[in-house]
Amino acid sequence: MNILAFGEVMLRFTVADRMMLEQSDQLTMSTVGTGVNLLSSLAHFGYETSMLTVLPDNPIGKKAAADVRKLGISDKNILYRGKNLGSFFVELGQGARPQRVTYQDRLSSSFCLMNADDYDFEKALIGVDMVHICGIALSLNRQTRKAALHLAEVAHERHKTVCFDFNYRMSLNEDNNHETMKKRYQKILPFVDIAFGSRRDLTDLLDYQVDDETKLYQKFCQDYQINFFAGSKRNFIDNRKYFEGFLFHHDKIYRSAAKELNILDRIGSGDAFASGILTGLIEKWDFEDILEFAIANSVLAQASMNDSPIFSKADVFHYIDTDGKNDLIR
Amino acid sequence: MNILAFGEVMLRFTVADRMMLEQSDQLTMSTVGTGVNLLSSLAHFGYETSMLTVLPDNPIGKKAAADVRKLGISDKNILYRGKNLGSFFVELGQGARPQRVTYQDRLSSSFCLMNADDYDFEKALIGVDMVHICGIALSLNRQTRKAALHLAEVAHERHKTVCFDFNYRMSLNEDNNHETMKKRYQKILPFVDIAFGSRRDLTDLLDYQVDDETKLYQKFCQDYQINFFAGSKRNFIDNRKYFEGFLFHHDKIYRSAAKELNILDRIGSGDAFASGILTGLIEKWDFEDILEFAIANSVLAQASMNDSPIFSKADVFHYIDTDGKNDLIR
Amino acid sequence: MNILAFGEVMLRFTVADRMMLEQSDQLTMSTVGTGVNLLSSLAHFGYETSMLTVLPDNPIGKKAAADVRKLGISDKNILYRGKNLGSFFVELGQGARPQRVTYQDRLSSSFCLMNADDYDFEKALIGVDMVHICGIALSLNRQTRKAALHLAEVAHERHKTVCFDFNYRMSLNEDNNHETMKKRYQKILPFVDIAFGSRRDLTDLLDYQVDDETKLYQKFCQDYQINFFAGSKRNFIDNRKYFEGFLFHHDKIYRSAAKELNILDRIGSGDAFASGILTGLIEKWDFEDILEFAIANSVLAQASMNDSPIFSKADVFHYIDTDGKNDLIR
Amino acid sequence: MNILAFGEVMLRFTVADRMMLEQSDQLTMSTVGTGVNLLSSLAHFGYETSMLTVLPDNPIGKKAAADVRKLGISDKNILYRGKNLGSFFVELGQGARPQRVTYQDRLSSSFCLMNADDYDFEKALIGVDMVHICGIALSLNRQTRKAALHLAEVAHERHKTVCFDFNYRMSLNEDNNHETMKKRYQKILPFVDIAFGSRRDLTDLLDYQVDDETKLYQKFCQDYQINFFAGSKRNFIDNRKYFEGFLFHHDKIYRSAAKELNILDRIGSGDAFASGILTGLIEKWDFEDILEFAIANSVLAQASMNDSPIFSKADVFHYIDTDGKNDLIR
Amino acid sequence: MNILAFGEVMLRFTVADRMMLEQSDQLTMSTVGTGVNLLSSLAHFGYETSMLTVLPDNPIGKKAAADVRKLGISDKNILYRGKNLGSFFVELGQGARPQRVTYQDRLSSSFCLMNADDYDFEKALIGVDMVHICGIALSLNRQTRKAALHLAEVAHERHKTVCFDFNYRMSLNEDNNHETMKKRYQKILPFVDIAFGSRRDLTDLLDYQVDDETKLYQKFCQDYQINFFAGSKRNFIDNRKYFEGFLFHHDKIYRSAAKELNILDRIGSGDAFASGILTGLIEKWDFEDILEFAIANSVLAQASMNDSPIFSKADVFHYIDTDGKNDLIR
Amino acid sequence: MNILAFGEVMLRFTVADRMMLEQSDQLTMSTVGTGVNLLSSLAHFGYETSMLTVLPDNPIGKKAAADVRKLGISDKNILYRGKNLGSFFVELGQGARPQRVTYQDRLSSSFCLMNADDYDFEKALIGVDMVHICGIALSLNRQTRKAALHLAEVAHERHKTVCFDFNYRMSLNEDNNHETMKKRYQKILPFVDIAFGSRRDLTDLLDYQVDDETKLYQKFCQDYQINFFAGSKRNFIDNRKYFEGFLFHHDKIYRSAAKELNILDRIGSGDAFASGILTGLIEKWDFEDILEFAIANSVLAQASMNDSPIFSKADVFHYIDTDGKNDLIR
Repeated sequence: MNILAFGEVMLRFTVADRMMLEQSDQLTMSTVGTGVNLLSSLAHFGYETSMLTVLPDNPIGKKAAADVRKLGISDKNILYRGKNLGSFFVELGQGARPQRVTYQDRLSSSFCLMNADDYDFEKALIGVDMVHICGIALSLNRQTRKAALHLAEVAHERHKTVCFDFNYRMSLNEDNNHETMKKRYQKILPFVDIAFGSRRDLTDLLDYQVDDETKLYQKFCQDYQINFFAGSKRNFIDNRKYFEGFLFHHDKIYRSAAKELNILDRIGSGDAFASGILTGLIEKWDFEDILEFAIANSVLAQASMNDSPIFSKADVFHYIDTDGKNDLIR
Repeated sequence: MNILAFGEVMLRFTVADRMMLEQSDQLTMSTVGTGVNLLSSLAHFGYETSMLTVLPDNPIGKKAAADVRKLGISDKNILYRGKNLGSFFVELGQGARPQRVTYQDRLSSSFCLMNADDYDFEKALIGVDMVHICGIALSLNRQTRKAALHLAEVAHERHKTVCFDFNYRMSLNEDNNHETMKKRYQKILPFVDIAFGSRRDLTDLLDYQVDDETKLYQKFCQDYQINFFAGSKRNFIDNRKYFEGFLFHHDKIYRSAAKELNILDRIGSGDAFASGILTGLIEKWDFEDILEFAIANSVLAQASMNDSPIFSKADVFHYIDTDGKNDLIR
Repeated sequence: MNILAFGEVMLRFTVADRMMLEQSDQLTMSTVGTGVNLLSSLAHFGYETSMLTVLPDNPIGKKAAADVRKLGISDKNILYRGKNLGSFFVELGQGARPQRVTYQDRLSSSFCLMNADDYDFEKALIGVDMVHICGIALSLNRQTRKAALHLAEVAHERHKTVCFDFNYRMSLNEDNNHETMKKRYQKILPFVDIAFGSRRDLTDLLDYQVDDETKLYQKFCQDYQINFFAGSKRNFIDNRKYFEGFLFHHDKIYRSAAKELNILDRIGSGDAFASGILTGLIEKWDFEDILEFAIANSVLAQASMNDSPIFSKADVFHYIDTDGKNDLIR
Repeated sequence: MNILAFGEVMLRFTVADRMMLEQSDQLTMSTVGTGVNLLSSLAHFGYETSMLTVLPDNPIGKKAAADVRKLGISDKNILYRGKNLGSFFVELGQGARPQRVTYQDRLSSSFCLMNADDYDFEKALIGVDMVHICGIALSLNRQTRKAALHLAEVAHERHKTVCFDFNYRMSLNEDNNHETMKKRYQKILPFVDIAFGSRRDLTDLLDYQVDDETKLYQKFCQDYQINFFAGSKRNFIDNRKYFEGFLFHHDKIYRSAAKELNILDRIGSGDAFASGILTGLIEKWDFEDILEFAIANSVLAQASMNDSPIFSKADVFHYIDTDGKNDLIR
Repeated sequence: MNILAFGEVMLRFTVADRMMLEQSDQLTMSTVGTGVNLLSSLAHFGYETSMLTVLPDNPIGKKAAADVRKLGISDKNILYRGKNLGSFFVELGQGARPQRVTYQDRLSSSFCLMNADDYDFEKALIGVDMVHICGIALSLNRQTRKAALHLAEVAHERHKTVCFDFNYRMSLNEDNNHETMKKRYQKILPFVDIAFGSRRDLTDLLDYQVDDETKLYQKFCQDYQINFFAGSKRNFIDNRKYFEGFLFHHDKIYRSAAKELNILDRIGSGDAFASGILTGLIEKWDFEDILEFAIANSVLAQASMNDSPIFSKADVFHYIDTDGKNDLIR
Repeated sequence: MNILAFGEVMLRFTVADRMMLEQSDQLTMSTVGTGVNLLSSLAHFGYETSMLTVLPDNPIGKKAAADVRKLGISDKNILYRGKNLGSFFVELGQGARPQRVTYQDRLSSSFCLMNADDYDFEKALIGVDMVHICGIALSLNRQTRKAALHLAEVAHERHKTVCFDFNYRMSLNEDNNHETMKKRYQKILPFVDIAFGSRRDLTDLLDYQVDDETKLYQKFCQDYQINFFAGSKRNFIDNRKYFEGFLFHHDKIYRSAAKELNILDRIGSGDAFASGILTGLIEKWDFEDILEFAIANSVLAQASMNDSPIFSKADVFHYIDTDGKNDLIR
């Protein structure tokens, strides 16, 4: 199984010792992004992965590529152009104090400045079984949008499994109006086989007016010939946090049990869930097992530092088998 | 609004990685003190603040002044004399293991050795609306006591709002007898408009013999013409910790809801509460809102590292609006 | 009271910032081992202690000896031979993600390569009241087994109190068959006065077929003339973790209350319990008090970093007196 | 003496332990920029300073402002707009391995996106004696250029001393042609009283065709009515590095002695020299003394970490008096 | 160009802050080895590289493989067996205090315990142009010796360029006698095309009795049909350190100029020299240029942390072009 | 050989990454003092050592005692009283930037507050061969002076070898006049066998008016019946630093060669020299060898971090044998 992901790679700067930016000068850097996170997890589950992206042609780009390789992802499809890499700062939270993410400008990044026509998608798709496209590309700019759309189309034509993550965030789209964004998503969805998103993505972004959740997902999947639709969410009960997910396929919603969260680092929970779902689909497990595996992968990811999950299948099964109650492995 | 605080500035040495002193040689240093903590919070709420204190005339004093400025507090009223700065070590706690504070001698500090007559309080009070005096000055030595008293008197005469924090700690007063300490507090209280303390400060230190809490605070406020009396405390229920506060004004006790604590660093909780109360009074909010704001500020402060709160009003309102349930801001 | 412990000293490498090995290059090193952990705790309770072991004759051995001394343990019985020290990596856990220990080869360590006949046990026992032997020596190799056995015999003959910790771990004994291991334990037990272990050690390793717990321990203690048998275990109730222990003496099982755990670092919990029990027996406290003290010491140890407990009696009593509810000492 | 500086504030990320970006994830952050560096040094020499710039209106901007205050610079003229702060990575060098600086895009920073007309220069200049403008503003974009020019003009009209640093770097001007850049510099120079630059700035950028150095500087200063022109440079002799400077005034070049460098961090050497020159001019020292002081300040700055010098006059005089031969102060 | 290296991968633990082992508990870990160092440098020069080795089948092995990938080396030929990875501690030196390396046992490593017959050399050599074998394999044990020899033979038969590094160290061979070691080296040399070593390797290990250096290398290369023989050494003149190298080919010794060293980390200087030589031979540069490039790569490597060089060709040429006198790149 | 040292133990806070106090919040702590430094070195040379001092009876005192043990020094003569430990900050230097030491008040330390009569010197001297007293005790206060004097007297009476280090520093004696200090030193010298100091100590402090160095030392040793007088100093030649020493005995000055310094941390150079001299005298080496050893120990100490030397005899001999030219040990 060979999976290609397309999307932006970013630098993450985490403030040391759970401090806030004003309190410390010490940062730990890591290389992240929806594609990187997803492929890191899939690589650690044993699949061949490669990242299709653009990095700056300078020491920062080389650092990012080294990190990508370290995560087990091939860098053979990485292009080096320009000078900038998108970045964000993370201040880890504690209890009532939320984890805080502050983005630096992404629009001047090498990825955003790349001309959509300069990608050689045909070549990147050779030997690839599955393609993952992050929906953020639809929000960034014309070039990233065009590239994402073109890749989805080409991959679909070549019968690759196309996965798509809505990843729709209001804060990224302050300057885009609702109708524009809706049209962009509608344009890419016909090429998609597996979609990750939430109920709200369908009702608020795509303007579906269906109350019943099953019927809502049914309509959505029929409209765009989508094979699988999955998503995760978090709940708070009595000041404890829980994580759960769903998988919709052939007119039926499958739901996971809710698992308690003990968060070290919140970011990447959706990517960990998605890589778990894809793994289960690749391995053709029962839907219940797929959901249990995906939730477990995400719960573990949220209990570990940084965005990119690095758990093996054995690690995830160990969590499932012990119900998260083993606190020492030796 | 321009607030001046008078009190000792100290160096805090926090042992790294939640270790104990015997376990690690790595320390993180910060500059703290009741005045610094309170003003840091008030500066981050948008008010002009300045610290009236004495620092050593050497690289340590310059380091402390730099930290004070970094927190948003003016250093224009800082004097540089002598060689020593009071300091303490902090070993962060975990669960059943308490956070531990070990003081080094404070009595030889530049602040304690300063001659009370050498302060130019008149000058320091120019343009100031509110003055905060930390009660610890009454425990340290004759000079600090004299200075605190004199400042309270001068500020009161000039119709500045005088705030006073009891900050009475047995461990600081092993060598002072009860009657002596009581008299010192009684001497300063007539100049005070807003007092921070606890029921125990009134019953155990000032020897009030009133059981009913409302009547107790009533009597205390009448005796010294105090306009507002406020305080906070922590409760343990089923191994969970909660924080709550009260505000007494015009014969009535207002009480906050209790909020669950998830502590990263315990120190400065009272200062964060006090700065919240002062902010509410400055802004003339409803008493319920003031208490909610003050408790929220302190809960956030206890969920963050170091003594000095650096939350903006927006940060505190975000906590209140989401009931502390949002765990990611981006 | 003078206690000698015999066993392997190891280097522990803890990955920084709760990260996993693949995520970080930063390690914190410490010097540990069942004997070191136990003696560290006993030294901090005020007893004379010394470690009988073999360290490499190079800078690593000197570093380990320096750490042993730092913990308050005499290095006068340490021998320096060979080149290697056993080591393991620790990835700290968080919530559902277990703490993970990965051992590097112990069998080529100076301790394991030491000829059992080259120890001068007579000399090491001069002035010693109590000897502690870690059961792991029975699993490592022929020389460590022989040395442990010989020391137990010599100490028993000289009327020293002999303590023995089963410390039986399947993972260490993949190459040893059940009967062989059983015989080794049976051979040393007749010299033992105080044994630490679990019910499972008796039923699974020693093949006792007694269902009733009291009768089981009774039979075991009678068979080998063992004076005290004690052990601890952890429970999970509603996603919370608890720790509790037992002490068997003269036909009766004494049980502690269960105390909630808030774990910073899991390793060494058994050693902390054992040092608490030994302290109580040395001080001839009531059995209830002994168990409360031992559990408290272990709960505190698990709430602190590294394997070796460094709490004083006052620290433990403070925890007991405040029921672990004080979260700030100053 | 009150000095205002106008220019970009940037984040600097220094890779830990003299490693290169590919080798480490640990960064130390600091807030820098020509204006910040210069004012930091002047503030530590005892003058009032304030920074006129634009920072992002988010936690990164607040962090930068806190750092600016910490350096002793007033933040009262800082505006908060937009989301981005320019940044660069520093890999410290060693011997033959050069220190390497990699910039991230500066053109999308809050400072660059600020509308030149939105500055209130009149207000910023109240009470100010001296204004410093960094030449980089001429290279960045139309708005920064326009703002720099306007400020120079307004300050000149109000009889403030206008200082200007050429700071011309080819790498920043790959997209600007020579004639365009020349015209920009020619446009601002008539408002300048004190200029910092090099011989090459005059010959290569401004196209002066004068060989004799004295005549060259004479012509330049006459053409633009410049009162003082100063600059520094480094020499390598027998694998040792030296630093020296010149000051031109009234037809005469004054030259410093060359001082050996032992570099910890190369960046900011020109700013340290400039702040030394300004200090000497403010204090009306002899030109020889001014140059000795400026070179000493820069040699010390290069022997210390980060861009912003924090030496007091006493520190610099100590270096001069001991000829850099004292290696311990206590 | 595709290069395969065979040899042991090791963990390196560097004590923080130039401290010694007894002084600090902070370590920085890196993954090294002659093969890893050489391939890291070659990968950064733009060639395809892969490491043929055995790593433990546990988190330590996964960490090492991740690091290997990060350095740009393919992990497709890495086998996972056993539990141990060889390791060593590094205490960085300063001036007269030498850098100190302390090895932990290598003989129980997964690499050493691997059965020589279990390698699939045929498969590993597919698509490979050049093979590098580290001579340390001849010292470790029978299996590593056998594997190295077999690989050399198979590669030679398949007309791959076989490179061999003597890497003969007395300290590794205390238990091997001279004649035995000599025979082992004599056995592998007939398969070698490019050898790295020193004059002493020929005279002391191989017992050549030729005084004239040219004749000595002539005889050695004729005896074993070796095409290139190269080596480097360090000199101390007036307390300064210099580095220089030679390359012998077709009866002639080519010598580099000596370059001054300013050492940050001494280890890996020979591997950096070797990768420079191989690059020059691959690119068919003049021998003078090859030596200049190889010495430059090694001088840079010694001025940087860790064993594995990560300089690009552009980095090395920059050093050559500026004669190491540029101390800032931006 | 058993050596007892009497003197103050202090905490040293070293600012991280060669930064200055205003630049960093990261500190590394160590436990130091003339006695500690000297005994650490002697313990590492193989002698029994113990420190006679007073530490605070709190976690700071326990930390310091743990560090003392770690250095190989017995803590059996340490008393625990009071609350304070003297401390100082160290900012490491670089080239022309001097290392800077800033003391916090020492006069309120447990050591200074100890009543001189409460020491049990008789008991501390049991089994001791040599006593070392640091002259700083004469400057601190009446109690430390009295204790030092009394110990010298008692030790002398019991025929212990009494060593005394002048350690006279102007900065410590701003409040003591010359005559007073002179008398204090004159009072203790009659009990001294081995004195460490400088020519200036004899001329400026003791007012000797002898120009010829040999005659000066002759007179001094005769006046006080001193057997050995030794000292070290540093020279600067052409911007390089050198270290050299002398030893006076029986009318003759022996001088060492000057050795070049490459300083990592300057503090403790005199203590390293003194421990080298004492070792040579204990071992009865030739005076030339003693001086070479003492200078070598100090050169190594200055090339390593922290005050307390931890080199073995083998380390020092290695430096001597290789003339400091070996830069890698493995």
